[in-house]
Amino acid sequence: MDYRFSLDFKVRDYECDLQGVVNNAVYQNYLEHTRHEFLLAEGIDFAALARQGIHLVVTRAEIDYRFPLRSGDRFRVCLNVEQSSRIRFSFHQDIYRLPDDRLILNAVVTGTAMNEQGRPMVPKELMGLIGNTGKQEL
Amino acid sequence: MDYRFSLDFKVRDYECDLQGVVNNAVYQNYLEHTRHEFLLAEGIDFAALARQGIHLVVTRAEIDYRFPLRSGDRFRVCLNVEQSSRIRFSFHQDIYRLPDDRLILNAVVTGTAMNEQGRPMVPKELMGLIGNTGKQEL
Amino acid sequence: MDYRFSLDFKVRDYECDLQGVVNNAVYQNYLEHTRHEFLLAEGIDFAALARQGIHLVVTRAEIDYRFPLRSGDRFRVCLNVEQSSRIRFSFHQDIYRLPDDRLILNAVVTGTAMNEQGRPMVPKELMGLIGNTGKQEL
Amino acid sequence: MDYRFSLDFKVRDYECDLQGVVNNAVYQNYLEHTRHEFLLAEGIDFAALARQGIHLVVTRAEIDYRFPLRSGDRFRVCLNVEQSSRIRFSFHQDIYRLPDDRLILNAVVTGTAMNEQGRPMVPKELMGLIGNTGKQEL
Repeated sequence: MDYRFSLDFKVRDYECDLQGVVNNAVYQNYLEHTRHEFLLAEGIDFAALARQGIHLVVTRAEIDYRFPLRSGDRFRVCLNVEQSSRIRFSFHQDIYRLPDDRLILNAVVTGTAMNEQGRPMVPKELMGLIGNTGKQEL
Repeated sequence: MDYRFSLDFKVRDYECDLQGVVNNAVYQNYLEHTRHEFLLAEGIDFAALARQGIHLVVTRAEIDYRFPLRSGDRFRVCLNVEQSSRIRFSFHQDIYRLPDDRLILNAVVTGTAMNEQGRPMVPKELMGLIGNTGKQEL
Repeated sequence: MDYRFSLDFKVRDYECDLQGVVNNAVYQNYLEHTRHEFLLAEGIDFAALARQGIHLVVTRAEIDYRFPLRSGDRFRVCLNVEQSSRIRFSFHQDIYRLPDDRLILNAVVTGTAMNEQGRPMVPKELMGLIGNTGKQEL
Repeated sequence: MDYRFSLDFKVRDYECDLQGVVNNAVYQNYLEHTRHEFLLAEGIDFAALARQGIHLVVTRAEIDYRFPLRSGDRFRVCLNVEQSSRIRFSFHQDIYRLPDDRLILNAVVTGTAMNEQGRPMVPKELMGLIGNTGKQEL
């Protein structure tokens, strides 16, 4: 499959829970960090926007857990993005263990941008994210 | 709405991120802790099962984020459970802010049980979870 | 021993690591939440101060780990505070398992307050914290 | 200064709290991961030992927080180790921001090894850790 962005990680022992595998919530950390690094590579700085009062927010997450990651595992988080409505973006994110490419997780994470008052306010950089790639699906 | 179990929490400051709201991944912690406390109240001990080699695992999570929790907020995590296949259970979990009952989040978290070899193995206590309440929906 | 403030908790399974005990870093979460709840009870709101540009910061932590907490354990975090220099405060924090009062951890956490520019700036509410109790040790 | 091992990281946004800086407890995660990677490089696998019933445990942590890390910061965690008693090891760990080498944190983390019954039991690989380097300070 063809992805627009990917980031490699290694499981840290403190991310594993008493079952000896990465805790379910931790995968959301991996997914978020990958989205933020992707946005940064596109010139969109999550933290800088927050300081300006523009908040990128997740409105929905769908996560299918296929196989657990364990202590010491290396893995790749891959990402595609599409515009799912006038003001919403959907990130398709898959995790594969390295080096055997075993599928670990599929996720669709949908988000939007809001100002301090909670009004949708999509910065032009974010609109450009889609326009630049011809993947806009309005 | 009528729930089978609920648990009250208060947001802890370390759970908030640089946007000043509870980080998305942390809600999964709240949801998990509530499921485990529910199971414990039903005589099913997640940690004890893990020590016996029986792992309760999440296979899918769908989370709709409606409104953020902030520093100091009190909230209630509510839960219903149904059997969604021969070996799968779905927890319907909603979070409300207290005392105004503002809806914060809706989630459906589906799981099953496995032995050390990854084979489905639903302990009889878990089957009883549904049978006892007449909510079985096979 | 006589403490000025205490807060009761229950271990959550996601706080345990692959050794089946609460991860070392998580105790700092417990200690921080207890300090913030104490400060709140004294009229000092960590999050509100941060929004005003006044940051309560930890400058040193000394933690002696005596015995681990496990899944399901209940425990109490106890706290005393003293002024350790003109602009520093030291929190003496001990954790006991409930109901048997087994000592889990002793900590001394020292902090101060700073403005956005990193200059020490102790809000008068914080000075009052000590003055009110006659424990000032300038 | 001369260190025996170091590991580079980048701050992830979910590690920052509502003050916009890395939360105090998260530094312990960084320190732990660096120790475990160091041990692994020396042939000592924390997770594998735990599965065998040998637990590497922290008995004391002293952390001096010098300057905060923020969203996007890169940093290096450096490590030396010495034997501090017959059964205890002390890791001296310092964190520097990259690329300007600003000092972020100094820590001394002392630990030992125990079997399931809580008896000190230092695996020979761990003893070799010190012996091999001529740094033993009994």
